[in-house]
Amino acid sequence: MKRRDFFKNTTLATAGAALLPTLGFGHSMDKKAGKTAKNIIFLVSDGMSTGTLNMANLLLHRKEGRKSRWVSLYEENKAVRALMDTASANSLVTDSGAASSAWGGGVRVNNGSINVNPDGSSNKPILQKFKAAGKAVGCVTTVPITHATPAGFCIATKSRDDQEGIARQYLTLKFDVMMGGGTEFFTSNKRKDKADLFREYSQQGYSVVRTRKEMMATSPSVGTPILGVFHDNALPYTLDRAQDKHLQETMPTLAEMTSQAIKHLKNNKKGFVLQVEAGKVDWAAHANDIGGLLYDQIAFDDAIGVALDFAEKDKETLVIITTDHGNANPGLYSNEKADENFDKIQKFKHTNDWILTGISRDSSLKQLIERVEAAQSIAITSDEAQILLKHIRALDETGIYNPKKLPFSQLAQIQYNYTSVGWGSIHHSADYVELAMVGPGSELLKPFVKNVELHKIMLQACGVVS
Amino acid sequence: MKRRDFFKNTTLATAGAALLPTLGFGHSMDKKAGKTAKNIIFLVSDGMSTGTLNMANLLLHRKEGRKSRWVSLYEENKAVRALMDTASANSLVTDSGAASSAWGGGVRVNNGSINVNPDGSSNKPILQKFKAAGKAVGCVTTVPITHATPAGFCIATKSRDDQEGIARQYLTLKFDVMMGGGTEFFTSNKRKDKADLFREYSQQGYSVVRTRKEMMATSPSVGTPILGVFHDNALPYTLDRAQDKHLQETMPTLAEMTSQAIKHLKNNKKGFVLQVEAGKVDWAAHANDIGGLLYDQIAFDDAIGVALDFAEKDKETLVIITTDHGNANPGLYSNEKADENFDKIQKFKHTNDWILTGISRDSSLKQLIERVEAAQSIAITSDEAQILLKHIRALDETGIYNPKKLPFSQLAQIQYNYTSVGWGSIHHSADYVELAMVGPGSELLKPFVKNVELHKIMLQACGVVS
Repeated sequence: MKRRDFFKNTTLATAGAALLPTLGFGHSMDKKAGKTAKNIIFLVSDGMSTGTLNMANLLLHRKEGRKSRWVSLYEENKAVRALMDTASANSLVTDSGAASSAWGGGVRVNNGSINVNPDGSSNKPILQKFKAAGKAVGCVTTVPITHATPAGFCIATKSRDDQEGIARQYLTLKFDVMMGGGTEFFTSNKRKDKADLFREYSQQGYSVVRTRKEMMATSPSVGTPILGVFHDNALPYTLDRAQDKHLQETMPTLAEMTSQAIKHLKNNKKGFVLQVEAGKVDWAAHANDIGGLLYDQIAFDDAIGVALDFAEKDKETLVIITTDHGNANPGLYSNEKADENFDKIQKFKHTNDWILTGISRDSSLKQLIERVEAAQSIAITSDEAQILLKHIRALDETGIYNPKKLPFSQLAQIQYNYTSVGWGSIHHSADYVELAMVGPGSELLKPFVKNVELHKIMLQACGVVS
Repeated sequence: MKRRDFFKNTTLATAGAALLPTLGFGHSMDKKAGKTAKNIIFLVSDGMSTGTLNMANLLLHRKEGRKSRWVSLYEENKAVRALMDTASANSLVTDSGAASSAWGGGVRVNNGSINVNPDGSSNKPILQKFKAAGKAVGCVTTVPITHATPAGFCIATKSRDDQEGIARQYLTLKFDVMMGGGTEFFTSNKRKDKADLFREYSQQGYSVVRTRKEMMATSPSVGTPILGVFHDNALPYTLDRAQDKHLQETMPTLAEMTSQAIKHLKNNKKGFVLQVEAGKVDWAAHANDIGGLLYDQIAFDDAIGVALDFAEKDKETLVIITTDHGNANPGLYSNEKADENFDKIQKFKHTNDWILTGISRDSSLKQLIERVEAAQSIAITSDEAQILLKHIRALDETGIYNPKKLPFSQLAQIQYNYTSVGWGSIHHSADYVELAMVGPGSELLKPFVKNVELHKIMLQACGVVS
């Protein structure tokens, strides 16, 4: 099939006309009908509330004197923006599986499922559609590659929790680039079925890479799909990685994965579609972990930079930048020392995750205080440390230490006194979220969209009829 | 001066060209140079975080089957949107005085002051500029008309707290419509200087109205400025007003004030500029009072409707809809019963303010539980009621009851269990905020603006050189 075969210009022009924006009262905007996009790069900062976007930009600006690429896009007037309604089929507050399914399958499903409807039927994921139309496709993420957000573009499964099953489903798809964490869902010693999926992927012709170095050494080759899995579960937080040479050598950044993925995908004559997810922004929001959150959001912004730099030269790439839902709605709050307090985050060396996973029921008050000081240059009081230690010691009276129940909320509440950053919850929110599009196809976007509408917009932008 | 005299087309076209949006990579949007606006209606929901806009729309949609006018504007693709940076001169987190001064005076000032710079010099407020250009001008609000947001468009003063001084400053301006609350800053028995400002306003030729009925009875007359002051301090919350016939008869809604103001102002041949403020959205956010917040946000939306209905017929009016800063970043948070919990707010009859101001240190546990039940159909537990009563009884050990220190945060935390709505703080946030423009001049808006840039945009939109 030649490239022009799937430039369905007639269909596109009609669809485009219906979606063309009008401005003011009945004034048409006289926009040109958009060019067809050859490529799409879809970037998701998972669980990004407005305050996350805002504070990451403030942190970057105050620390390095530069604005984020995302905000710069707006300042330079290069993007089309929308507010996006993120609801799922069964709730005003979506989970990441239903959110990615809305984009990926074009149908809202219940929380917990991936592209499977309540009646058991399933919806064809968008990367399967694009692959069938001749495009190279892929996903990169900082959480397991089998996690909800990449999965929603790739496969259908009743339960997002079945990451071992998702790892197996990917095998037969032969998508061109799949990279992230999640070793435990591929290795025989961790999988329930004891299957060695890494071996099976290799047997199926995949190039399997397990470290940053191996990833960087792969040479662009469209015929050979790449599976990159770099860590047991999610990749480490950007902030913690920056203090650890070993992690820096073995774990790629999101920007590096994005760059490498584009290198591979761009050689396909019929173009490509790539999803890029900053998955730990969501995890940090769930943990009210401001250092984890903002430095991972900045790492996401670096990936935006890679995508935009490519797209700006390429001129045939639609770049979509958004989030799947709000999470915890963090904010920098009014205080006489708000600016000064916020600036303390510039000196953070480690996340709250690093602090709390290094403390056990046997740690002393002094050790805890020193660990917070070493990680974040914040001197918490004995009373504050006592609150945390009490929680840690009460974690499990049987003596089985449960790191998943660490006092993240309590630490965040204490930090509020030092950073002026507060949190509304440890859960996803129903907030409408920020969405930006740049490049051909962006003229299809209206100022308010439902997540589910993006499915058609992406297909239309590329002239692919599903 | 004839109307065309201040259509500075040359200046406008040049300014417009510099600000014209480009789309994608180097593609110009081919927008028409905008028509000059004759009128501006500037609507501010004070202290509105993203979640406030979002939840008001959800509440309206689920309760009445209709979307908010604000969200509908986006769905119908009629508005130009921007993210707005709301910082003040001395903080990333603004107060309402500095925020309104940025718009009103075109210069960022320190929190606490209104259009007065740190060196003591002052900036000419925008309504004085528009008045000098021949336009009729005014402000309507649900808080005292002497409060920060209207003041920032009208006058300059070192301290926003000097509302008595602001009431006197307004006198000589002879602005065409000034309406809201704040009797205490005008009456001789409350003012420190014992001046009877209502009498002085009458003597200066103002038509002074003190009730909804009197306001409705005023007949449009451009020559006679109107001062409307309807309540001692702020007007009651929309939700509480709806349960009280007396309040409904004596207090106008924001939409009614907006409608009446437009009726007066529109007869001016050279057009008008009107600021409309939903001031108690901010007060409700400070109090984490979800019923107060959402129903006042809906009342604000009704005022948007009045403005848009006028502008749609008029075709020469720029409508600006925004907020001055986030506040408390409320959110509807994930929970198995999130939708069901959120729907409880549909049945609210009273605000948290009404609940707590009706409870004293002598109230019983049973009385408190019954009051919450009567107000919001929520059955709080004895333990929860005990937490609140303990706070109320501890308010002041000397026995002087202090309603300003009522346990609003504690009640909101308890409500989270029933409504799934959480709050990040009781303070303003640094979040970038939502801004929409419709009508002539809206083409001047870029997707990211600083609050302070709006000053010039408003002047340019009307072709007024300051």
